Amino acid sequence: MSPLRSWFIIPRGSHFSLANIPFGIISTESSKTPRVAVAIGDHALDLEVFAANNGFSALSTIQPHQDVFSQPSLNAFAVLGRPVHSIVRKYLQSVLAEDTPYPDVLKTNSTLRRQALIPLKDVKTHLPFKIGDYTDFYAGLNHAYNVGVLFRGPSNALQPNYKHLPVGYHGRASSVVVSGTPIRRPNGQILSNPLAEKKVPTLSACQKLDIELELGAFVCKPNSMGEPVPISEAEESLFGVVLMNDWSARDIQAWEYVPLGPFNAKNFGTTISAWVVLADALEPFKTKGLENDSKVLPYLQERDENTVYDIQLQVSLKTKTGNSTTITKTSSRNLLWSFPQMLTHHSITGCPFNVGDLLGSGTISGLEQSERGSLLEQNENGKTSIKLSGSEVRHFLEDGDEITITGVCGSDEEALVGFGECVGRIEPALKL
Amino acid sequence: MSPLRSWFIIPRGSHFSLANIPFGIISTESSKTPRVAVAIGDHALDLEVFAANNGFSALSTIQPHQDVFSQPSLNAFAVLGRPVHSIVRKYLQSVLAEDTPYPDVLKTNSTLRRQALIPLKDVKTHLPFKIGDYTDFYAGLNHAYNVGVLFRGPSNALQPNYKHLPVGYHGRASSVVVSGTPIRRPNGQILSNPLAEKKVPTLSACQKLDIELELGAFVCKPNSMGEPVPISEAEESLFGVVLMNDWSARDIQAWEYVPLGPFNAKNFGTTISAWVVLADALEPFKTKGLENDSKVLPYLQERDENTVYDIQLQVSLKTKTGNSTTITKTSSRNLLWSFPQMLTHHSITGCPFNVGDLLGSGTISGLEQSERGSLLEQNENGKTSIKLSGSEVRHFLEDGDEITITGVCGSDEEALVGFGECVGRIEPALKL
Repeated sequence: MSPLRSWFIIPRGSHFSLANIPFGIISTESSKTPRVAVAIGDHALDLEVFAANNGFSALSTIQPHQDVFSQPSLNAFAVLGRPVHSIVRKYLQSVLAEDTPYPDVLKTNSTLRRQALIPLKDVKTHLPFKIGDYTDFYAGLNHAYNVGVLFRGPSNALQPNYKHLPVGYHGRASSVVVSGTPIRRPNGQILSNPLAEKKVPTLSACQKLDIELELGAFVCKPNSMGEPVPISEAEESLFGVVLMNDWSARDIQAWEYVPLGPFNAKNFGTTISAWVVLADALEPFKTKGLENDSKVLPYLQERDENTVYDIQLQVSLKTKTGNSTTITKTSSRNLLWSFPQMLTHHSITGCPFNVGDLLGSGTISGLEQSERGSLLEQNENGKTSIKLSGSEVRHFLEDGDEITITGVCGSDEEALVGFGECVGRIEPALKL
Repeated sequence: MSPLRSWFIIPRGSHFSLANIPFGIISTESSKTPRVAVAIGDHALDLEVFAANNGFSALSTIQPHQDVFSQPSLNAFAVLGRPVHSIVRKYLQSVLAEDTPYPDVLKTNSTLRRQALIPLKDVKTHLPFKIGDYTDFYAGLNHAYNVGVLFRGPSNALQPNYKHLPVGYHGRASSVVVSGTPIRRPNGQILSNPLAEKKVPTLSACQKLDIELELGAFVCKPNSMGEPVPISEAEESLFGVVLMNDWSARDIQAWEYVPLGPFNAKNFGTTISAWVVLADALEPFKTKGLENDSKVLPYLQERDENTVYDIQLQVSLKTKTGNSTTITKTSSRNLLWSFPQMLTHHSITGCPFNVGDLLGSGTISGLEQSERGSLLEQNENGKTSIKLSGSEVRHFLEDGDEITITGVCGSDEEALVGFGECVGRIEPALKL
């Protein structure tokens, strides 16, 4: 299939081709109230302005709901449901297409083009959803195995439950921030001498600050308490996907996590990319996840065998000196569980979901050293060092380090479906 | 000090004496929009109606903010801050006092009395806060010890971190419900034969459904990401306290919780009492918590030695047959950590809090068998049975069982500061 072409200039290699149309929240210097937009090429299309100027006049479905584009989050748009998201995306594609059946809407309407199409460099992006609850899973099999080997050795690397259910834990919704937000190195209790028999913690700035390369998925359909989401309906409950960096304080985690799991090690910041790629846009890039050699219980069995996305993921680390090194390249197909499986398992107890709830995939690592999605795995818990370009090395993150995750689907430079960037820079800890 | 007397009839032994004035959210048959009220004796005082009829005309502080009482949650009132909560409580006490300086407001205003004072039996109570994030701690030392003995034996019962930091985990905010909401027995993965070498789970209705006797505290002051709440300011960030039953599926928990902690075992329902007792009202009942024989790091050290509340707690179980048995009597002084310590530790990393965030204390147990706050502890993980009145016995909860938690401070029957009830009844699991 030849790619959709636009009358609008979309640079070759743009993550935001006409095949994509991701949604986000923007504001500008001249109009500071956050509102809904889509990204197209190097521009944002301001949907509040677009709607106010009859941009949706040909789309009767959305007309009674146009106020959703004036909201400071995508929650109200998401509530409308996947069939509506799909119609809106297709309509915007057709408005932007070279041979648009609606030339008057934007193509020949230079006034609205000037008002509604804003260079991305001139927009500030905001957290796309008001997040009710955030859950982080652990579905990256290779990551779970690598970490298991570090702490329990290869024969007990994976816990007995790992291949039967998507292991997860409740995260901290309040600390999820949009790409670009600085991350302050956390203080916390750590053991300066973990091997000492008497465990005496100190309060210290985190010495083992790490990243976790993940995907996040937003929920667009609520379920009532006591009513699980069947696997056959889970797909319809998922709005779209973002890149995620689940910053982790490994030394705080090691001391605190027994017996109730990660807590302060994870609640000082989780960064997500600004543009949410709709599930529809990712549909062509579905593929098989990792093989599960355990028999999965029927409530988690999916009809289709292609259940995870093949997103080419990359992590780069830029130091204070300006040196940038790609430290990880992998694919999001390295997951044992799909987002529908996570949602179905999470709700099997009757746990209620609200629109805007966020599911994290867990750290994604491939099999090779260069495919590992956390520094902990790359440096074997601090034993080896990670070589950066130039003569710099890293064990864990230093102040001033900037981490950028990118993710993109497809190979046709004119039809990429990408996520843009998920960026965060480490600021020094508060002085104690 | 002799108790405050009211011109209004407050039954002896009422939890809602003039010394209390707890806040909640109500609606009525004739006015279905949820709004703010306080409980007084057997009545709710509807603060929306009270405000609309010049009830606060003598209180200039609150006048610009009276719309907070028309909200469907206490969040907007809580935002005003503890000094304002204190002023409003004291003003309402003075309006209701026998020798009120404001007789025209309510005492001699029979029209407003009729409109604003509604028998509690005629009000429906709602979740008092819109909860952003919910965190559950594990500060009940005796509970942690008892459970530790069951799973690891007495010598390793408490983990090395236990006395150095308030252990906690992020909970599921969406599943917190108000007293009276039915709780459906969850389905989930359990091991029908946990001792078998090959661990093969089944999907089943929970067979070990349990309670956890806890307190909850609501946050009324936000902090920005990266800015911890110092222990000296933590008290000012806490609005008030509720009773909490953190329903727990022990068999689901046992299978799922390694290595990331409790998840589905805890997200099918957490019940809180409807009336939030202000921190001010509880102030006279502060006492020493349990002794901590470890040296606590300075950031967690409190100036005052009385840091926890002496609330007399009671749990009763009523079976389908109508038989009711008190199964637990204890005091909330059985905590190793105070709510200010929990908040300070939780935010030491810079974790941001929003108004309406909820902190759970963890299960509260005394030293004696009859003081244990969970069935797991009472029945030693199913080994012994719990004798109920009549000839019934229980290991864990059966369908139709109703659990009622009550809590009250003080002994003067005319000046009790109580919480009313925190009730939930178990409905059968969804058929699989």
